[in-house]
Amino acid sequence: MRKTLLLNKADVHENVQMPELISAIEDAFAAYELGDAQMPPKSYIDLPQYNGDFRSMPAYLDAGDWDAAGIKWVNVHPDNGEKFDFPTVMGTMIYSDPETAFPLALLDGTELTMLRTGAAAAVATDHLAVEDASSMGIVGAGVQSYTQLRAISEVRDITEVVISDLDEERVADFIDAFEDEFDIRAGSIEEAAQCDVLSTVTPVENPIVPREAVGEHTHINAMGADAEGKHELADEVLLDAKLVIDDHAQTTHSGEINVPYHEGVLTDDDIFGAIGEIVVGDKDGRTDEDGITVFDSTGLAIQDVAAAHVAYEHAIENENGYAFDLLGLSDE
Amino acid sequence: MRKTLLLNKADVHENVQMPELISAIEDAFAAYELGDAQMPPKSYIDLPQYNGDFRSMPAYLDAGDWDAAGIKWVNVHPDNGEKFDFPTVMGTMIYSDPETAFPLALLDGTELTMLRTGAAAAVATDHLAVEDASSMGIVGAGVQSYTQLRAISEVRDITEVVISDLDEERVADFIDAFEDEFDIRAGSIEEAAQCDVLSTVTPVENPIVPREAVGEHTHINAMGADAEGKHELADEVLLDAKLVIDDHAQTTHSGEINVPYHEGVLTDDDIFGAIGEIVVGDKDGRTDEDGITVFDSTGLAIQDVAAAHVAYEHAIENENGYAFDLLGLSDE
Repeated sequence: MRKTLLLNKADVHENVQMPELISAIEDAFAAYELGDAQMPPKSYIDLPQYNGDFRSMPAYLDAGDWDAAGIKWVNVHPDNGEKFDFPTVMGTMIYSDPETAFPLALLDGTELTMLRTGAAAAVATDHLAVEDASSMGIVGAGVQSYTQLRAISEVRDITEVVISDLDEERVADFIDAFEDEFDIRAGSIEEAAQCDVLSTVTPVENPIVPREAVGEHTHINAMGADAEGKHELADEVLLDAKLVIDDHAQTTHSGEINVPYHEGVLTDDDIFGAIGEIVVGDKDGRTDEDGITVFDSTGLAIQDVAAAHVAYEHAIENENGYAFDLLGLSDE
Repeated sequence: MRKTLLLNKADVHENVQMPELISAIEDAFAAYELGDAQMPPKSYIDLPQYNGDFRSMPAYLDAGDWDAAGIKWVNVHPDNGEKFDFPTVMGTMIYSDPETAFPLALLDGTELTMLRTGAAAAVATDHLAVEDASSMGIVGAGVQSYTQLRAISEVRDITEVVISDLDEERVADFIDAFEDEFDIRAGSIEEAAQCDVLSTVTPVENPIVPREAVGEHTHINAMGADAEGKHELADEVLLDAKLVIDDHAQTTHSGEINVPYHEGVLTDDDIFGAIGEIVVGDKDGRTDEDGITVFDSTGLAIQDVAAAHVAYEHAIENENGYAFDLLGLSDE
């Protein structure tokens, strides 16, 4: 087929099954660690006149059984909701055959981002949370919170959920979505942080999770920080934790650790390692000696490419999506 | 409309009218010169195992009356034709609203590239060729040659055309395409180079246009070189010409001048200026004193964004293209 498959939000949602995505994201972290991936630094276009920016995230990865290439074009426009009723973040993904560069698919990158972000947290949780983790806290009930619970409940038998957000409507929506599957309740940040697994998905610039709130063996996925100046966890949490990052350049620039790192409060000596090192077995995941663990996730372009691969393969198999002759190369 | 407009090859061709495109490309060169554009360096993904690469080309430009943002994802896979019956170069373009970042359109970037490359040559020709230019030579009868003639005949009253290529079939195809409009014939490189305007659009690594072949007042658009090691014109042509470039970083890295520049044969002192400086009036185009002029064009991301802008605006006006709810934001 010499047509490009268009996969809209619903198609992406339907064709990216979480268990397979988690496995693909784990493959991607491994490929990156092993030097089998290429991921040029994100490049930014800053548009202060619109209070927004664009980011381009190209990547290639070779996972052995499969390889994949593509680029995600994504933005952060914080005024979008209030002014235009658009999401703050929107993404568009081009997924290409590495061998010929033919654009196999164009995908909704917004849905893809949420799914792959959830899957990254699940990979980290699988390696770092206690084996018998059954409770999960989530701080922030925005769009990213849903895929956190969906993904993490694939790797641990989560039964009890505490959702914490200042916005009661968002909390109610979240509870509505999951009350049939989990024992779920609204709670304080402190209650959420006592769970076996905690995911933080807020855009705050002043830490909201104090050291004393965190359970003795809690694994934390710090997902919210995505720009300089943002952090969600008190420095003491990071310093006392076994601290795992997705990528050194990205996390020190704009991840959970960026503020204490630039203040010199947290140094490279405080970072245990990269998730890729754990995935390939060069470093240990949770051991009996570990207390709090933290995964600082900024989101890597290889995750998008891996997620697009899963979406495309399934859409072809299920005959989903809309085939479009974008480049005028089809004979049909 | 909260749908993304899909513009395939035919849509791009139909909606990008050359006179307007030339004007938009001129605006883009001006915006870049005036500091009203953002164009992060192209980032590359090299895939030697497939003898290919991907390039990402994001850009934003503010032309005063309009502004535009987007990214082109493009490749060079030289084995594509022989092995897979695919073009060597394929492009996909995402065109976004800078204010909200909504992806307004997805476009065939292959057709777009050919059109904007032709238009860039036309802008340079307009400023650098003799006013009464009536003859045009073209060396290389590949896909880029067609838009060279189409575009340049918009800025000069071209009546006589000489097409030069070793491949007789390509020459015949080219003549077939244009014989109703021009007095056109096959000829040698020397004959082509005697014309008032010459465009070279070949991928050669050893110069094929010798100094003595070039007419006294010929303006040359050197379009072919797009990678280290490639050049089409003898060093003496460049050294004797009024030499104009599109971008210093790109031309010295991979444009017509890259080889003599790195050998030290050609230095910054030999470069007259950038096309943007001429467009905004900071430097002169052709004057009575000028003999040979050369435009070294590598192709800028702002050209793609400007071309996408023209395509999109016209497609909306003409109700062309296919509106697709990629992001799932439409109520329709």
